Amino acid sequence: MLNLETLYDASKVLGEVARKTDLILSKTLLEGTDIYLKSENLQLTGSFKLRGAYYKISKLTEEQKKKGIIACSAGNHAQGVALAAQKNGIKATIFIPATAPISKVEATRKYGADIKLIDGVYDDAYKAACEFQKETGGEFIHPFNDEDVIAGQGTIGLELLEQLPDVEAVIVPIGGGGLIAGVAYAIKQLKPDCKVYGVQAQGAGSMYKSFIDKQITELPTVNTFADGTAVKRPGDLTFDCCMKYVDDIVTVTDDEVASAILILMERQKLVAEGAGALSVAAAMFGKLPIQDKKTACIVSGGNIDVNILSRVINRGLLTTGRLCHLTIELLDKPGQLRDVSSIIAQYGANVIRVRHNQGGSNTDINDCFLKISLETRNTEHFEQILKALTEKGYKIASSVQ
Amino acid sequence: MLNLETLYDASKVLGEVARKTDLILSKTLLEGTDIYLKSENLQLTGSFKLRGAYYKISKLTEEQKKKGIIACSAGNHAQGVALAAQKNGIKATIFIPATAPISKVEATRKYGADIKLIDGVYDDAYKAACEFQKETGGEFIHPFNDEDVIAGQGTIGLELLEQLPDVEAVIVPIGGGGLIAGVAYAIKQLKPDCKVYGVQAQGAGSMYKSFIDKQITELPTVNTFADGTAVKRPGDLTFDCCMKYVDDIVTVTDDEVASAILILMERQKLVAEGAGALSVAAAMFGKLPIQDKKTACIVSGGNIDVNILSRVINRGLLTTGRLCHLTIELLDKPGQLRDVSSIIAQYGANVIRVRHNQGGSNTDINDCFLKISLETRNTEHFEQILKALTEKGYKIASSVQ
Repeated sequence: MLNLETLYDASKVLGEVARKTDLILSKTLLEGTDIYLKSENLQLTGSFKLRGAYYKISKLTEEQKKKGIIACSAGNHAQGVALAAQKNGIKATIFIPATAPISKVEATRKYGADIKLIDGVYDDAYKAACEFQKETGGEFIHPFNDEDVIAGQGTIGLELLEQLPDVEAVIVPIGGGGLIAGVAYAIKQLKPDCKVYGVQAQGAGSMYKSFIDKQITELPTVNTFADGTAVKRPGDLTFDCCMKYVDDIVTVTDDEVASAILILMERQKLVAEGAGALSVAAAMFGKLPIQDKKTACIVSGGNIDVNILSRVINRGLLTTGRLCHLTIELLDKPGQLRDVSSIIAQYGANVIRVRHNQGGSNTDINDCFLKISLETRNTEHFEQILKALTEKGYKIASSVQ
Repeated sequence: MLNLETLYDASKVLGEVARKTDLILSKTLLEGTDIYLKSENLQLTGSFKLRGAYYKISKLTEEQKKKGIIACSAGNHAQGVALAAQKNGIKATIFIPATAPISKVEATRKYGADIKLIDGVYDDAYKAACEFQKETGGEFIHPFNDEDVIAGQGTIGLELLEQLPDVEAVIVPIGGGGLIAGVAYAIKQLKPDCKVYGVQAQGAGSMYKSFIDKQITELPTVNTFADGTAVKRPGDLTFDCCMKYVDDIVTVTDDEVASAILILMERQKLVAEGAGALSVAAAMFGKLPIQDKKTACIVSGGNIDVNILSRVINRGLLTTGRLCHLTIELLDKPGQLRDVSSIIAQYGANVIRVRHNQGGSNTDINDCFLKISLETRNTEHFEQILKALTEKGYKIASSVQ
């Protein structure tokens, strides 16, 4: 059974290795409300997962340690387990689906783990890990449904209360539920009047649905770019903790998560992954009754592929009118490109890309299209340019901002 | 005269407002060397500039405060002054060249400052600010060449010594020199055996050149994307401090700075601006004798436009082989696009963009070009694909990775 003593023990054990991550106040994420970011994206391995994995390993017997540990993960759990094993001087074998981003595989390998890349998806890797476990008798480290793992993650709750004793609400991302189980337990034991809220991605709301249905529910599929939370079925231990200690669970869309990631980068100078930004998305987009309450958002991790980060930025730029794509119908006669360019230049927008296409199959034979991508200051700026072009007689075939 | 008493006073005054920013250990920026990041990008306003501005303002007389303060800046200094004025309840008028990024202007406005957007470049804004100062008698807050400003920035040195008493080297970005002047003074007074190094962008090395020439040197032009450091002429106070307390000054290229920004995002989950990443670039690229030394890099700020950040990421992706552009010469016959696509799919690369162009003016009449942009895992992965295409008889007209 989870108890406070175990949590304090975990805190002591983790004192040797985990970072006591900074709690960073933001006054601009939600107008009028102080939002404190618990920056577990700045934790070693880039996520909170080290805490649970390390504490779990510390409790193994010498006999168990000798046989080594096994894990199955494509992401943060893999890195957490690998570093925890390295710091304990024991062998870790980690099964990773071959479709995982190479950057996460390489990061895990760097911590000295033995990597088994398994063709297929997570379930295939999990199957291989179970077979390996039977062969070797090694200890399988579950990513969330384990009391010691939950206790390890719960140390974040203890730190929060120490860093912000008068916290009134805590918002926690949920995948399988290990993080919220530990944090909610810690908070409700020590400060029962503090609200604890969970957030899931809309496309992977297994705990959300289970919480509403009041019974564990398995989703047939999950689909979200907050890949660290794509869990089809919550654990029974984590589900029980949510039912007992969590005040409410809400969901956010992938677009809301992307906006939160962009805002965290722009205003807070913090890189968060999709899962890590769930809590901030819920706060920013008014999903929870936290107005005027001292609220802590756990930013659980920052391991986002830069390829994806680049797309998130571009999407955010489009959304806020700072990147625009224009298609202008031109008459096929000289001087038109020059005229359009000078209107754009006059308004101080920055041309990024130009394509000039003559005669598509669905246009009149002497029409042609000019496609221009622009850096603009904001939506108003873009609209000024649109208006100026229209006033000069140009026909805007389409515009995306 | 700068003295320790003033620094301690600044530290006490700033205790009310500035964040004591976290010192974050990284073991991977330079193999075998512990690099500690002093995360002033996480400071309020996104840079260290708040410290100097706030301390300076706190020392003004009531009479001076009543007349208000004036500053001229397109960047971090503007935001630092604006917030410092707001927190002191006094009026700030800030002159900004109209070419400044709208995001910085808006951020400054949000802190309640009166913004004067001046047509032209920095010098024009500076001229207007001086005229305004004569009219109003307000106090002009210099961005770096001021003892109280220097003392405010120097509090970072005090914090560093408290957070890492056995630090052996400190690396500091230099623009006008206010930051390094204060930090070097603090360090050399309290721990003279600790090395203090300065870093400038190669395209804006005014302090670097002055340091080598042993006299203040003005550069005719400056050009760097570390825009916060684009200063043509160091101040006399800051230059004197560098001559007395700084062990060496080096320069880094814009490409090195861009790599440092990308690595800080990927590994440390921190967003740094060009100026802020100078110190890390110098450490990563072996510009300084810090091997095996406990080294602190001051990451001085994180106010980078996301437009630029997106370009930095793309450049980094190209450099590390994770984004590739291929131009393939095809015979103009059916089935070629299908064949190329299946080779790429077989190797698990992700197609981002395709352009298929028939007959350019400098090609044979029945040739055509296929331009493909790919997400790949790394340089080796990209080369495997190139090899497979070549083996199937495709001619690669050009490839950029």
